Amino acid sequence: MINKPDFENAEGLVPAIAQEIESGEVLMLAWMNQEAWELTLREGIAVYWSRSRGKIWRKGESSGNTQLVHEIYLDCDNDTVLLKVEQKGDAACHTGRHSCFYQKIENGVIRIISEPLFDPDEVYDT
Amino acid sequence: MINKPDFENAEGLVPAIAQEIESGEVLMLAWMNQEAWELTLREGIAVYWSRSRGKIWRKGESSGNTQLVHEIYLDCDNDTVLLKVEQKGDAACHTGRHSCFYQKIENGVIRIISEPLFDPDEVYDT
Repeated sequence: MINKPDFENAEGLVPAIAQEIESGEVLMLAWMNQEAWELTLREGIAVYWSRSRGKIWRKGESSGNTQLVHEIYLDCDNDTVLLKVEQKGDAACHTGRHSCFYQKIENGVIRIISEPLFDPDEVYDT
Repeated sequence: MINKPDFENAEGLVPAIAQEIESGEVLMLAWMNQEAWELTLREGIAVYWSRSRGKIWRKGESSGNTQLVHEIYLDCDNDTVLLKVEQKGDAACHTGRHSCFYQKIENGVIRIISEPLFDPDEVYDT
């Protein structure tokens, strides 16, 4: 029985949704290759593949804002992962916000619906 | 100001998460090209790009299980869409289930956590 994403059919990368287990809020979407998937299962924290940096990315490795993985789901086509997580530090987004989905489209225009919880310049090396 | 996904940087397709607005449950992930994005905004129902069929896909066009779009969000990188929807017919998944994420990984093994609400063979043309 298949018990992992179908990486072969997805050219090696599948989207992974991180949802806050307590609130149900969708925090972010990132990508997993097989190594990231296996590390996530083994370590119990969300590990992604950074497409921009081309390397394994333990979410929170710079900011400390790790994601403790409580539940893991696969979709019907085995090509999307859903992680139910506990967000350490309360901010999933590299902008310092709780969720990456802070741009709401209203009448075709973006409205910013949340403010940063920390200053990214003080957290990330530039 | 950018008020749409960055389709150019995403090779034309971005992932779109459909979340049930009332329960917060993540129902499915599908894909949007620019046409699907514009149709979703114009029509108020979720319209995706079907990668398997290579065409615009008004979710529910066969099953009647359309998704009324209540809210639309873009993430920090403008490369993922989050739709908060009202799921008509209560089933988002082509297997007849409420959510596509019905395969839960427990100790490395898949456990099916929900049952179909309808029989797909009676709903879809084969």
